[in-house]
Amino acid sequence: MAEDKPARSGRVARQTQRAQKGQGLGRPYILRNIPTYDILSEENLVRIDAAADRILAETGIEFRDDPTVLDHWRRAGADVQGVLVKFPPGLLREVLRTAPPVFTQHARNPAHSVQIGGRSVVFAPAYGSPFVMDMDRGRRFGTLEDFCNFIMLAQSSPNFHHSGGTICEPTDIAVNKRHLDMVQAHITLSDRPFMGSVTAEDRAEDSIDMARLVFGSGFVNDHCVILGNVNVNSPLVWDGTMTRSLRAYARANQAAVIVPFILGGAMGPVTNAGAIAQSLAETMAGCALTQLERPGAPVIFGNFLSSMSLRSGAPTFGTPEPAIGSMVIGQLCRRLNLPLRCSGNFTTSKLPDAQAMTEGTMSMLAAIHCGANFILHSAGFLDGLLSMSYEKFMLDADLCGALHSYLDGVKIDDDQLAVDAFAEVGPGNHFFGCSHTMQHYETAFWDSDLSDNEPYEKWQAAGGLDAATRANKLWKKRLAEFEAPSLDIAIRDSLDDFVARKKAGVPDAWY
Amino acid sequence: MAEDKPARSGRVARQTQRAQKGQGLGRPYILRNIPTYDILSEENLVRIDAAADRILAETGIEFRDDPTVLDHWRRAGADVQGVLVKFPPGLLREVLRTAPPVFTQHARNPAHSVQIGGRSVVFAPAYGSPFVMDMDRGRRFGTLEDFCNFIMLAQSSPNFHHSGGTICEPTDIAVNKRHLDMVQAHITLSDRPFMGSVTAEDRAEDSIDMARLVFGSGFVNDHCVILGNVNVNSPLVWDGTMTRSLRAYARANQAAVIVPFILGGAMGPVTNAGAIAQSLAETMAGCALTQLERPGAPVIFGNFLSSMSLRSGAPTFGTPEPAIGSMVIGQLCRRLNLPLRCSGNFTTSKLPDAQAMTEGTMSMLAAIHCGANFILHSAGFLDGLLSMSYEKFMLDADLCGALHSYLDGVKIDDDQLAVDAFAEVGPGNHFFGCSHTMQHYETAFWDSDLSDNEPYEKWQAAGGLDAATRANKLWKKRLAEFEAPSLDIAIRDSLDDFVARKKAGVPDAWY
Repeated sequence: MAEDKPARSGRVARQTQRAQKGQGLGRPYILRNIPTYDILSEENLVRIDAAADRILAETGIEFRDDPTVLDHWRRAGADVQGVLVKFPPGLLREVLRTAPPVFTQHARNPAHSVQIGGRSVVFAPAYGSPFVMDMDRGRRFGTLEDFCNFIMLAQSSPNFHHSGGTICEPTDIAVNKRHLDMVQAHITLSDRPFMGSVTAEDRAEDSIDMARLVFGSGFVNDHCVILGNVNVNSPLVWDGTMTRSLRAYARANQAAVIVPFILGGAMGPVTNAGAIAQSLAETMAGCALTQLERPGAPVIFGNFLSSMSLRSGAPTFGTPEPAIGSMVIGQLCRRLNLPLRCSGNFTTSKLPDAQAMTEGTMSMLAAIHCGANFILHSAGFLDGLLSMSYEKFMLDADLCGALHSYLDGVKIDDDQLAVDAFAEVGPGNHFFGCSHTMQHYETAFWDSDLSDNEPYEKWQAAGGLDAATRANKLWKKRLAEFEAPSLDIAIRDSLDDFVARKKAGVPDAWY
Repeated sequence: MAEDKPARSGRVARQTQRAQKGQGLGRPYILRNIPTYDILSEENLVRIDAAADRILAETGIEFRDDPTVLDHWRRAGADVQGVLVKFPPGLLREVLRTAPPVFTQHARNPAHSVQIGGRSVVFAPAYGSPFVMDMDRGRRFGTLEDFCNFIMLAQSSPNFHHSGGTICEPTDIAVNKRHLDMVQAHITLSDRPFMGSVTAEDRAEDSIDMARLVFGSGFVNDHCVILGNVNVNSPLVWDGTMTRSLRAYARANQAAVIVPFILGGAMGPVTNAGAIAQSLAETMAGCALTQLERPGAPVIFGNFLSSMSLRSGAPTFGTPEPAIGSMVIGQLCRRLNLPLRCSGNFTTSKLPDAQAMTEGTMSMLAAIHCGANFILHSAGFLDGLLSMSYEKFMLDADLCGALHSYLDGVKIDDDQLAVDAFAEVGPGNHFFGCSHTMQHYETAFWDSDLSDNEPYEKWQAAGGLDAATRANKLWKKRLAEFEAPSLDIAIRDSLDDFVARKKAGVPDAWY
């Protein structure tokens, strides 16, 4: 397992071939061929940096229930007053210099290992919903069966590169044990990279230990094989559960993803610029902490801005202000030379409808334009992050496919410019059969799994289905046809043993 | 009418006030505060320019059934062989130097006059569908009643800036007369700028004559008051109907919009770069023709790239390749220093569903990012341009509202950065009631007319409606509440007389 040699199976070989051509889907990750969309001037970026420095120096950040963190900050030269830490300007940027700008997260199938940072873009399913939905059964609490279903739907699509983490909460399993089932499911049902638990330090360590069973302890010490997504308790608080998990990942040389969740007007200022400055301050502090725990540990700079309804105060997602804010965060992150996680596919809609995909597409394109390297919430969310929808997952997967072509941009060379084809075809004639068309036809355009492009009458004769109904049929088909990737029986047994041992004699906890 | 003095009505005064604040909707047009998204290097743009020059010089463009055009080209120094015209490199760019980079299209309500070019963005409804759809009656041929309904829906929304043109074909009116009813409807039901007919030279002239009745002949000779959208017969053919209409608009100092419609693999190469080079060649030729007819006449550089399904050969819309292509066309247009029309809101979906808004949002954001000044197809299309949907129109109008905030970008100053608010609130507390939030709350975020942001239970209790159903209710409400803007009775009478006189004794033609 612990080697970077490509697997030999036919499917993987074909995928690798397509990836090497830079064409089509099934690549291990995307290398962006379009620039980031930089919307602010250097002068304005400097002003945001300065505002974040003032927040860090004058207001400070509280680090609760984790004395080790306070020791780290004291040694680094910060001003620690009880749990409140104030940072001299420049301190965090200096600490962050040891963090790698690019790293590889290894998959148990080496052909699926991903690069995180630089020009790479990695799509992972959404994370953290307590509910699931489908068009047949409506909304209900998620179970381990749902969790496994979503892993299988991700694994069977060439449009993702990562298996994700808590795709939905398996609420039928005790809170203190479900991380074991989740990590086991990722390893057995997928051969892509995955994420572990962060809800307690020992659960983070269990997750990493399970990765050690797959990859070997020595390999894990030198290579990133698992991610943990840790949240700031915005505004300006890091709680001990999160910092202990963050440190567990960093200590093991694994990558923490550092993410504030700022709902403008509630957990941060109601103005975009202020929320951005806060996000920068909070994320820099979390990223720096990983470097104090273990200099050189991989870490991902995250972002999660949101807006609210001015009428009700309810959170809104997929709106224009956070989309624009993401672009700015992307610029700020590149000044720090860290890998970026930004935005994702968000909506408050309760159905896989027009609203869901308007908001979803706007937020997902913001993640693309801002230069995000790791897009965690690429697929599935409805209901303001609270529900994973089977149909929305398939619709979003299709959008992820389109974004492969989008990120490929446009190639400019004599062949693509087709000047000879004009001479061949001439004014007023069609290009259908010309040699240039024949040569490029198969790879010219992205082809959707779900969109209907037929004439109206043909669509009507086929039942006049909407996109959500087509998505409903497709996820059932994909689950019915699913075949798990092969896994060494010794690894499978060692995981079974680990999970059984960890669960044995431990009473269930439900909070 | 023919003055630039703002109207005094309360509504307009409030709109003007908001527009001057640079906040909210109801502005006469948007001034973009985010940069264009420039995806290609200067070096690659030069290569596309060179490819277009080769197409123009070596293959050439046919101009059929309009000898005046051939005279124009001969005098300008082109190589005219029968109807085939070949252009020495640099000729078209030289001719285009007289075209204005920015101009104002005047509305009969001067507060609604729009700037076209530079940093301005103008949203107009979609154009040209033979069918209309709604959720109650399904698909049917469009009528004058539908046409008027869409004008009223656009006029009653603050999210548009322009009344558009042939919003749908009023197929119940004879082809040789419907332009009279359409222009009359735009003038009487809307007080925003509008477009006239291009389907025959005399219909173009009728349209302009009707504008003269509103604005006065002298004013029209010196100011743009009407647009005409003319299409290239791609590949590389301009037919006489279009060039005669183009010349009618230019001759009257009115703005032609010059638009190739290139479906890659059919009317142009299957590769994006080739279609872009062709589009540049065809559009430059059309734009230059306006300048030969009347140097200094306003003209808009248009673009309409499309892709096809590789399985069926059917046209596809809202896909990634044309979105990327639009960005390149925008860059090429800015090198010519012309106002840009790009892209719009496209989809092949037959319903106002998830597919419709995925494709619609991707294509509309491409129009925003590429720097388009005039976005003709902002709202309504379904069914691959063939149908105008009432519900889709409302959903798209809502997206246009969001794009106002998107184009406003993010303001960076001490107040927006909110550094003092952090000192006031401190770590771990909420920003709900702080003075900074109170001060900015009302204008902080765009607020949707259609999105549901309520908790799931509240949404369910309210009927559990999807976005399309909410849109269905909203268009009916808007039509029921519509009040036409006031119009001078003398102008109204003169239009009635004109239409009656033009129709009298002329037999209906239906093709």
